[in-house]
Amino acid sequence: MKKIIKIIIILMILLPDCLCAQTVKSPNGNVLVKFSLTEDGVPTYEMFYKRKTVIKPSHLGLELAKNKSASKGMNETSLIDGFTETSAHDSTFDETWKPVWGETSTIRNHYNEMAVNLYQKSSNRNIVIRFRVYDYGMGLRYEFPQQKDLNYFIIKEEHTQFAMTGDNMAYWIPGDYDTQEYETQISRLSQIRGLMKTAVTSNASQTTYSPTGVQTALQMKSNNGLYINIHEAACVNYPTMNLNLDDKNFIFESWLTPDAEGLKGYIQTPFNTPWRTVLVSDDARDMLSCKLILNLNEPCKLKDTSWIHPIKYCGVWWEMIVGAKTWNYTDDLPSVRLGVTDYSKCKPNNTHGANNAEVRKYIDFAAKNHLDEVLVEGWDEGWEDWFGHSKDDVFDFTTPYPDFDIKALNDYANDKGVKLMMHHETSASVRNYERHLDAAYNLMNKYNYDAVKSGYVGDIIPRGEHHYSQFINNHYLYCVKEASKHHIMVDAHEAVRPTGLCRTYPNMVANESARGTEYEAFGGNTPYHTVILPFTRLQGGPMDYTPGIIETKLSTWSKNQNYIHTTLVGQLALYMIMYSPLQMVADTPENYAKYDDALQFVRDVPLDWADSKYLEAEPAKYITVARKTKGTDNWFIGGKCDGDGHTAVVKLDFLDKGRKYNCTIYQDAPDADYEKNSEAYVITHRTLRKGDVLKIREARGGGFAISMLKE
Amino acid sequence: MKKIIKIIIILMILLPDCLCAQTVKSPNGNVLVKFSLTEDGVPTYEMFYKRKTVIKPSHLGLELAKNKSASKGMNETSLIDGFTETSAHDSTFDETWKPVWGETSTIRNHYNEMAVNLYQKSSNRNIVIRFRVYDYGMGLRYEFPQQKDLNYFIIKEEHTQFAMTGDNMAYWIPGDYDTQEYETQISRLSQIRGLMKTAVTSNASQTTYSPTGVQTALQMKSNNGLYINIHEAACVNYPTMNLNLDDKNFIFESWLTPDAEGLKGYIQTPFNTPWRTVLVSDDARDMLSCKLILNLNEPCKLKDTSWIHPIKYCGVWWEMIVGAKTWNYTDDLPSVRLGVTDYSKCKPNNTHGANNAEVRKYIDFAAKNHLDEVLVEGWDEGWEDWFGHSKDDVFDFTTPYPDFDIKALNDYANDKGVKLMMHHETSASVRNYERHLDAAYNLMNKYNYDAVKSGYVGDIIPRGEHHYSQFINNHYLYCVKEASKHHIMVDAHEAVRPTGLCRTYPNMVANESARGTEYEAFGGNTPYHTVILPFTRLQGGPMDYTPGIIETKLSTWSKNQNYIHTTLVGQLALYMIMYSPLQMVADTPENYAKYDDALQFVRDVPLDWADSKYLEAEPAKYITVARKTKGTDNWFIGGKCDGDGHTAVVKLDFLDKGRKYNCTIYQDAPDADYEKNSEAYVITHRTLRKGDVLKIREARGGGFAISMLKE
Repeated sequence: MKKIIKIIIILMILLPDCLCAQTVKSPNGNVLVKFSLTEDGVPTYEMFYKRKTVIKPSHLGLELAKNKSASKGMNETSLIDGFTETSAHDSTFDETWKPVWGETSTIRNHYNEMAVNLYQKSSNRNIVIRFRVYDYGMGLRYEFPQQKDLNYFIIKEEHTQFAMTGDNMAYWIPGDYDTQEYETQISRLSQIRGLMKTAVTSNASQTTYSPTGVQTALQMKSNNGLYINIHEAACVNYPTMNLNLDDKNFIFESWLTPDAEGLKGYIQTPFNTPWRTVLVSDDARDMLSCKLILNLNEPCKLKDTSWIHPIKYCGVWWEMIVGAKTWNYTDDLPSVRLGVTDYSKCKPNNTHGANNAEVRKYIDFAAKNHLDEVLVEGWDEGWEDWFGHSKDDVFDFTTPYPDFDIKALNDYANDKGVKLMMHHETSASVRNYERHLDAAYNLMNKYNYDAVKSGYVGDIIPRGEHHYSQFINNHYLYCVKEASKHHIMVDAHEAVRPTGLCRTYPNMVANESARGTEYEAFGGNTPYHTVILPFTRLQGGPMDYTPGIIETKLSTWSKNQNYIHTTLVGQLALYMIMYSPLQMVADTPENYAKYDDALQFVRDVPLDWADSKYLEAEPAKYITVARKTKGTDNWFIGGKCDGDGHTAVVKLDFLDKGRKYNCTIYQDAPDADYEKNSEAYVITHRTLRKGDVLKIREARGGGFAISMLKE
Repeated sequence: MKKIIKIIIILMILLPDCLCAQTVKSPNGNVLVKFSLTEDGVPTYEMFYKRKTVIKPSHLGLELAKNKSASKGMNETSLIDGFTETSAHDSTFDETWKPVWGETSTIRNHYNEMAVNLYQKSSNRNIVIRFRVYDYGMGLRYEFPQQKDLNYFIIKEEHTQFAMTGDNMAYWIPGDYDTQEYETQISRLSQIRGLMKTAVTSNASQTTYSPTGVQTALQMKSNNGLYINIHEAACVNYPTMNLNLDDKNFIFESWLTPDAEGLKGYIQTPFNTPWRTVLVSDDARDMLSCKLILNLNEPCKLKDTSWIHPIKYCGVWWEMIVGAKTWNYTDDLPSVRLGVTDYSKCKPNNTHGANNAEVRKYIDFAAKNHLDEVLVEGWDEGWEDWFGHSKDDVFDFTTPYPDFDIKALNDYANDKGVKLMMHHETSASVRNYERHLDAAYNLMNKYNYDAVKSGYVGDIIPRGEHHYSQFINNHYLYCVKEASKHHIMVDAHEAVRPTGLCRTYPNMVANESARGTEYEAFGGNTPYHTVILPFTRLQGGPMDYTPGIIETKLSTWSKNQNYIHTTLVGQLALYMIMYSPLQMVADTPENYAKYDDALQFVRDVPLDWADSKYLEAEPAKYITVARKTKGTDNWFIGGKCDGDGHTAVVKLDFLDKGRKYNCTIYQDAPDADYEKNSEAYVITHRTLRKGDVLKIREARGGGFAISMLKE
C-alpha cells in the first residue's frame, strides 16, 4: 500500500512536466508558455507571467463529428489524444506595421513563436499547434496541413481549456449564440452560476447555452494581482468561441457556436483556426495598449486603401430610439409586400423620421459642425413589418419611402461637403440581403455613399442558424469583402463581435456587437459600462457606440423617462476612451444647440491618432488616456469613471519639451452627478507644458476631456 | 341501452352530411365534390366520380406553431376546428389558353368553382377553402386573406386528408425530403409498410420520415375501377407535400417538408397554398391527357417568350455516367480551393470528358443530326472534390478547366448553328450558387448559351434544410426568375418535383426530379419505369429523362456491365411517351453511328406539338400516343410497354380524311427482348390513311415509333 502511494506521488510530480515539455518566452521574458503531452498524448499548455501562473495545465484538442456522406459504420477519430510530437520549431518575429487608421500610427508586432508538430497514429494525421508569445500575452491556434488523411472534417466541439489559478474576479456577459447586448456582470467565477438568471436580460434574438457560459473578450483579475483577458483573433470561416466554466475547478473551455444541426464547423485543409488569446499583465493599462489581437491578424489584403477614412457623423436615429419619431412611414399597413405595396397611396403617419426636411436639418447641422456624414435610418420601404415575423423578403435596400428624395438629399449634402451614410437593416434575413447586396452597393455608388451601417436584428434566416455560427460569420466577411470592391466602408450592428479583422479589411471601420448607447433609452447602461467595454468588447476592434448624448435627460424633449448614466462631460470623454475611426455625434441638432460650448470638444476631437498613452486604467473603474493627433502635434486627453467618481492624476510628461499648449478642459462641475446633476459642467482654458500635473475630479458617472492645441 | 344505440345510429346517419353540406359538380357532371363542417367545425370534403366515391369524408386544416418572437405565454390557435361557414360562392370558368410549348397548342381550362368562407371565432380569423372541379378531377386550396388577426403565421403541419375507399393498388415511391430517385413500387396500400425498407434504396441525399410515407404524384387504381391520382399544383413559397398513410383506415394525410428547425412554412397573408389535386377517371388515358395541374397554375408571367424554344441536345455526359470518362480534370488534387488551386500546374488525368477535342466531336454530331445544343458537364473547375464534403465554395460556375476553351468552342458550335448548353452543378451548396448566379448567367449571355442544366447533388447547404423545404423551393424558383431576365432556359436536376409552374415560367423547360436514365448505368430501371412516370412524375411538368441510349449493352464499349432495361426501339419510343420540350439524344456519336437508320426517328421527332391523343394507357403496363406536329400536319406515334410485352392497336381515325401519309415504322423484331435481344429491330415503310388500323407487337421492355409524314 505504501508503495502504491509512493508511485502516485512520484507520478503527480512527474505528470505536469511529463514527456517532452518545452517552453517559449516572450521577447522581454515576462511571459512564458510551456507545452507538453500527457501520457495519453493529450496536448497541454501552461502560461506564466513573471513566474506567476496565469493558466494552469490546460488541454487542447478538437472533437470531430462523422460526415453524413461518409460510409456507414465509419467513425471519425477526434483530434484529442494519442498524439506524439514529431518536431517543434522556434522562431522570432519583429516587424512594425502601419494601420490604415487607429490609436497609433505604427504598431510593433514582436513575438517568439513555437510551432509543435503532432502526429496521431490512429488516424494517420498531422496537426500543428502554434504559439505566439508576446510581452503582454500569447495566442495559440490549431493548424491542419493538407494531407492524405485530413482533407475535410467536421468539428463537433473544440476543447481548448483555460485553467484559472483560482476564483478570479471576472467582468463577464452571459454566453449566447445570438446576442452580445448584455450588461457586464462583475463577480467571482464561483458566483457566475448564481448570477446567470438575472444577467440574461431579454433581447430581440438570444440563445444561451449554459448556466456558466460566458463570452469573450473576458476580462479577469486574479487573486495574485494579474489582469487576464481571454479572447480570440482572426475568426474567419469558423464559429465564434464562447467559454464554458467548470466552476468547481475554475477551468474555462471553448464552446463554439453551433449551426442549425448543432455541429460547429466544416473544415477544409489546409486550415488554421482563429487564435485563442490570453492577455496578461500586472498593470491594467497594458490590457488597453497592447495590440496583440490586431497583430495576430493577417496584414491588410486591400491593395488600395486611399478611400478609407475616419467618419464623424450625426443622423436621423436618436429621435427614433427615444420614441419621438418612427422608422416606418405609415401606420396603415398590417404588412408589406415589396414591389406590391403602394406607399404613394398610404397615409403618412407624420412621425416618420427619414423625411426630406428632417434629413436636410441634419445635413445643415453636419456641415456647420464639420461632421463627415449623416446617417439616415428608416429611409427605405419595409419598416412597417420588419421585425418579429421571420420575414424573408423584408427589405430590398434600394427603394426609398416617398418622402425621402434620395437624389436630391445626396446632392444637397454633397454640395455642402457632407455625405449621407447608408443604412441596411437586414432584419437578420441574411439570404435576402445577399440577394440584394450588389444592387444595394451599386445604388450607394450611384449616389456617392461610401459607408453603410448594417443591422441584423432578430433571429437569423436561414432559420436555425445563429448570429455567430460559421455559416453566418462567413456572411459578415463576405459583405465586407464585396463592399471593398465598391469602395464602401462597413459598420455592422448585431453582427459577430470583432476579432481584429479590421487589420486585414480596414474598410470594416466599426461594429456594434455590444450594448450600445441605445440602451440608455431602453432603461439604461451601468455607469461602469464604458470603462469596462475598452477591456472587453473593444479588444477585437472599434465599436460604433454612438456617444455624444448631450441632453442626458430624455424627458426634457420626449416622452421617454430614461436618462443617460453618465454626466454630460462623461459623454464627451467617450470620444477619447472608446476608440473608433467611426464616431457618431448622436444627439439632435436641437439638443446640441443648447450646449454649443461643450460641443466644441466633439468638433475638435480627431478619430485617428499618431499615438496613444493610457495614463490610468482599472477595469470597470476608470480609464484615462492621452492621444496625439496625426499630422499636427496636438494632444487630446480623456478620462471616464464608474458610478463612484474618480480623481484623475494626469502627468503631462509626454508632451514636447519647451512647448506650450493651449488647453480647453471640459470637466464635471463640483456638484455634478450622473443621477442628480448630470449636466453641470465647467469649461476652463489654460496653458500647459510638459511636466505639468493635472488633478481632475470626475463626478459619479462622470469624466473629463481636454484638447491641447500646440501654440 | 337500446335508446343509446338508436341515438348512435341516428348520429351516424346524420354526421356525414352534418350541418351545411354543399356540393359542386364538374362541367359534365362526372365529378362531384361535397363540402361540410363537422359538429366541431372541422372542414370536411368528399369526392365522387360518376356517383362512385373517390375520396371518403376527409378533414381539412392546418396546425400552427407559435412564433418565437411572440409574447411569452401566447399560444397560436390552429386552423383545424371551431369553424363556422359565413358564405360560399359558386362560379364557372371556361377559357382556352396557348402554352409556349407543350403536348397541344391550346389547353382548355374549364371548371366549376366553390369558395367556402370560414370563420374561426376563437382566433377571429377568416379563411377560404376553394374547390375547382374539372371533368377529370379537382383541386382544393386554403386561402388566407390579409386581416387584422392573420398577417403572419407559421405552419407546424398541414392536415389535408385523402380518405381512400379501400385497399387501392398504388404506384408509389417512398416519401423523402431530399430525393425522388426511387424505383416505383406497385402494391396495395396495405403492403406499403412491408415493402418500405427495400423500396428505400441509397441516394446521395435522402431523408425518409415514415414507414407509410409516399410522394406525389401518387397514382392509384381503386377496387371499384377508378384511376385516382393525388398531387399538387403551383407550389410557390411553400414546402413540398408528401403523404403519410394511415394504413388501417386507408387515409392519406399531407406531410410537408420541414425546415432546419422542423417547422413547415412561414406565411405572410394574403396567401394561397398550392392546390391539392385529385385526378380521377375510369379511363387511364384521361390521367395523361387532362391538363388539370397546368390549368391550376397561374398564366405565364413572362412578357416576352420569343426566346424560349424546344431543345434537342446531345452532350458530354453518358461517357461519364457509364464510367468511361470523368468530370474531373486531374487525379492529383486531394481538394480544391477555387481561385487558389492552379490547374495549369496539375497533371491531366486524360479521362476528363469536357476537353476541346471531345466537345468538338459532339458539336459535329449535333450539327450533322440537326440537334440544337450540346451539353458539356465537367467543364468548370472544382470537380476533384465536389461531392461528399459539405463544401461551401464548391464551384464558381465561371472558370473553365485548362482543356476547355470556352470562347473557341462556343464559336465553333455557333458557326455550325449549334449552341452549347451550360452546366451548373451546385453540389446542393445553395448559398454559394446564389452568390455566383449573376456572374454565371452573365457568362452565359457573353458566350451565347441560352439554357442551363443545373444540379443539386448531395445534402443542402444551408445545412439542415432539405431539397423540398419552403426555403429551398424558393431558391429554385428564384433561379428560374433570375434566368428569365437573362433569357435563359432552366433544366434543374435533383430540384423539387414540378407542380405545373412551367405554365407560369415557361423557361423552366424541364426538371429531373425522378430516377432518370443514368440509373440504367448504376444497376438499372425496371422495364415499367417509363410507363409509370407519365402517370406520376410527369403530371407536374416535363422530365429531362435523357433517353436515346441506342447501344443498350454498356459492356460493348465500356467496362460497365449494366444494360438498358428497354429494347433499342423502346428508347426511340421514349421521345413520344415522355413528353418534354427538352430531350437529350444521350448516347455517344460512336454508338449512334452503328444504328444510323434508327437514329432517323430521333432526327425527325419534334418536341412541340399541335395535338396529342393518348390511344392506349394502363399504369406501369403500356402507353400509346399519337401526336401532331406544329406547323405541319405530320403525325408521330409511339408506344412503350413494361417487361411483359404488349400488342398495340392503333386506330388511325384521327388523321385527315382523304390524305395519305408516308410512314416509317420502327418496331421490335419478332424475337426482340430487352434482356435477351434488345437491339433487334425492324424498320418498315408504309403508306397509311385515316381509318387504317395497325397492330404492333412490342417486345418485353419494348415499344414502337412511327413517323407519318403527309404527302
